[in-house]
Amino acid sequence: MTIGDAPVRVALLGCGVVGSQVARILVEQADDLKARVGRPLELVGIGVRTPGPRPGIDEALLTTDVEALVRREDVDVVIELIGGIEPALTLILAAIETGKSVVTANKALLAQHGAEVFGAARASDVDVYYEASVAGAIPIIRPLRESLVGDAITSVLGIVNGTTNYILDQMHTHGSSFADALAEAQSLGYAEADPTADVEGHDAAAKAAILASLAFHTRVNLTDVDCEGITGISTGDIAAAERLGCVVKLLARCSVSADGTVAVGVHPTMVPVEHPLAGIRGAYNAVFVESVNAGRLMFMGPGAGGSPTASAVLGDVVTAARNRVRGVSGPGESAYSTPGITDPGRVESRFYLSITVRDEPGVLARVAEAMARHDVSIAAVRQEQLGDGGYARIGVTTHEAPYASVRDVVSLLTATNDVHGDVRLLRVEGA
Amino acid sequence: MTIGDAPVRVALLGCGVVGSQVARILVEQADDLKARVGRPLELVGIGVRTPGPRPGIDEALLTTDVEALVRREDVDVVIELIGGIEPALTLILAAIETGKSVVTANKALLAQHGAEVFGAARASDVDVYYEASVAGAIPIIRPLRESLVGDAITSVLGIVNGTTNYILDQMHTHGSSFADALAEAQSLGYAEADPTADVEGHDAAAKAAILASLAFHTRVNLTDVDCEGITGISTGDIAAAERLGCVVKLLARCSVSADGTVAVGVHPTMVPVEHPLAGIRGAYNAVFVESVNAGRLMFMGPGAGGSPTASAVLGDVVTAARNRVRGVSGPGESAYSTPGITDPGRVESRFYLSITVRDEPGVLARVAEAMARHDVSIAAVRQEQLGDGGYARIGVTTHEAPYASVRDVVSLLTATNDVHGDVRLLRVEGA
Repeated sequence: MTIGDAPVRVALLGCGVVGSQVARILVEQADDLKARVGRPLELVGIGVRTPGPRPGIDEALLTTDVEALVRREDVDVVIELIGGIEPALTLILAAIETGKSVVTANKALLAQHGAEVFGAARASDVDVYYEASVAGAIPIIRPLRESLVGDAITSVLGIVNGTTNYILDQMHTHGSSFADALAEAQSLGYAEADPTADVEGHDAAAKAAILASLAFHTRVNLTDVDCEGITGISTGDIAAAERLGCVVKLLARCSVSADGTVAVGVHPTMVPVEHPLAGIRGAYNAVFVESVNAGRLMFMGPGAGGSPTASAVLGDVVTAARNRVRGVSGPGESAYSTPGITDPGRVESRFYLSITVRDEPGVLARVAEAMARHDVSIAAVRQEQLGDGGYARIGVTTHEAPYASVRDVVSLLTATNDVHGDVRLLRVEGA
Repeated sequence: MTIGDAPVRVALLGCGVVGSQVARILVEQADDLKARVGRPLELVGIGVRTPGPRPGIDEALLTTDVEALVRREDVDVVIELIGGIEPALTLILAAIETGKSVVTANKALLAQHGAEVFGAARASDVDVYYEASVAGAIPIIRPLRESLVGDAITSVLGIVNGTTNYILDQMHTHGSSFADALAEAQSLGYAEADPTADVEGHDAAAKAAILASLAFHTRVNLTDVDCEGITGISTGDIAAAERLGCVVKLLARCSVSADGTVAVGVHPTMVPVEHPLAGIRGAYNAVFVESVNAGRLMFMGPGAGGSPTASAVLGDVVTAARNRVRGVSGPGESAYSTPGITDPGRVESRFYLSITVRDEPGVLARVAEAMARHDVSIAAVRQEQLGDGGYARIGVTTHEAPYASVRDVVSLLTATNDVHGDVRLLRVEGA
């Protein structure tokens, strides 16, 4: 607790893209922040891995003895912007154990060690806030935790990775290949040199675990998320989507299944152009929430970037600081429910299959029969000749079916002589 | 404070469209609400003006002795859903004075008596939450107060009245007159029998005052809002907007002027179709927030209705109840800033003027000269003949200009023999 007129002392861990902006704002907006908190916010140290000056940063604040910084008795709030599991987890637990509130942007850590972190926070009666961990600047964590807490959320759909949304948007807008769109994204700073975490969907999956935990008052771990990235998306998929009046989005989908279990997945998905999420362009993010009483809500904004993410961090810092000043903590995580996770095979969806076949009599009948055998109902079919080589492409849109059934259809078809190459399979959103 | 295992006791004032839904949810969701609060939420009384049974409501809860209900010692949280200034103000102050937290949807009251209510809450160390007062189910109050509190908001634009958005959407979609669209809205329950508060912009103005107060950490009163409704919107205005690639929206606009003062207005405004707010259809609401660090955020959802508004109320009730259980209150309102209100005449905007003139030589020159005389720069002009009667219509889009200058141009033109009837004047959003 902050006594008397003492400033609220803040320690920052990490001074990268986001950390440097947080440090900047703490200095530039000092007067406003003081007015809003009720006491000055004082940045007392910045823990970094490698020593040496950073532009715009007071070098006296930098330290490589990061553990000592988080354990300092006079620190009130620790901001963790290192990312990754270690040393972030050890440092955060040390901060909590020694009575500090924590503000973090660390999605990977919370998606895999959330239970431990929130349990420690509850035991120490400190706050752990993490708005910056999902959807950058967009307030979504606090609304889910505190605004929609009187409602029953039925689904959360999110475009929560700016890199992949930018790439897919480029593929639609310019007809680029995935490889070309990725290179463009990297050249503009929308994708990392090693883009794996983004394009394989892992980043979105961690965020999905966090969103689902909040929405359904339970603990969803990263390993519970059925995850598929966009590396396999072809120009043919993009064209097929457009023919169907859709755009391909990497969609994080969290919903309650018919049996009450919770389904959480990240998949490239065809989204109808009328859906609010279809219009999310470039590196923007959006989260679409459906609740029993509120109906359909959407939150939209910059999903990444130094300043946008820093905005979310500072919002949490001020809120945590206000609590410290008043000698209180906010309500902790509400994860009382144990609905269980839906087996990915049982998750129902509409699907689009693109099957390249020999253009011969009986092929379409056999494709249709394979679907019927696994009880997958066809909503629409389109067959078109592919050049003069004797091949055709059959595009099938299904009605709602369990993933396992559709997966079995794909296996069946792939094993036949009719089918050339792989069967492309994408989920389709909406009725 | 709630002692031991005692339930958190809630008193409800008003049992109308929203109140009846709140009562329903408190009963139907009792188990989940208890799990989220940590103690049962117990509805102990419903204050109403007229006695008599209501469908689905336990009649034993109803009472017309509303003052006694709010003063009961065992009540923890009072939900005020009566609306209007009195008796709501007296009842809310009585609740606060006797140590209850308050949840309200009362925009008119907060826009005119906010200072008094929040001051009383601070003195009694209780919470006053009002998410339901603006934009129905959409979380916007809490995000502004607690998520964006580390940022510097530069503008808030809102479509915050579902009745007028529905009417204008109908006028665009079906070419209806205002009168016909209003009648349609009333028949579907999107407009009241007496629609004045909505169509004259007063409802939106109260909400704008609340949003501006939060965004700029100051106290903006209803009387500070420059307000204009949609009753004068013609099919000609709609057609002109469409020709300019815009849609007409009743826009609440809160921004920081060049001199640091705060401008708050509600006006029918031409919004370019590319703007995120242009796509808000029917009775939906949306709030578009621009901040220095976060960039551009948008919040979208149902702006009214029993269940959506009840969702916002229940979110506040749970949050207030959680605080009571833990013996704390949340941070109060942060209104430390005194920027002052921009004189409406000095607020700059782009404008569209539609002038019906005699189709004679020299008329256009005189119109252009009138604009030049008041330093209003023309961005685009279009003149077209009106039938065979010797009249023409001149449509002018201006660059940014102070409202007073444009108003003076309109006065000048209206006084001449050239101009037939009134000059139509609408703001135009965007660069």
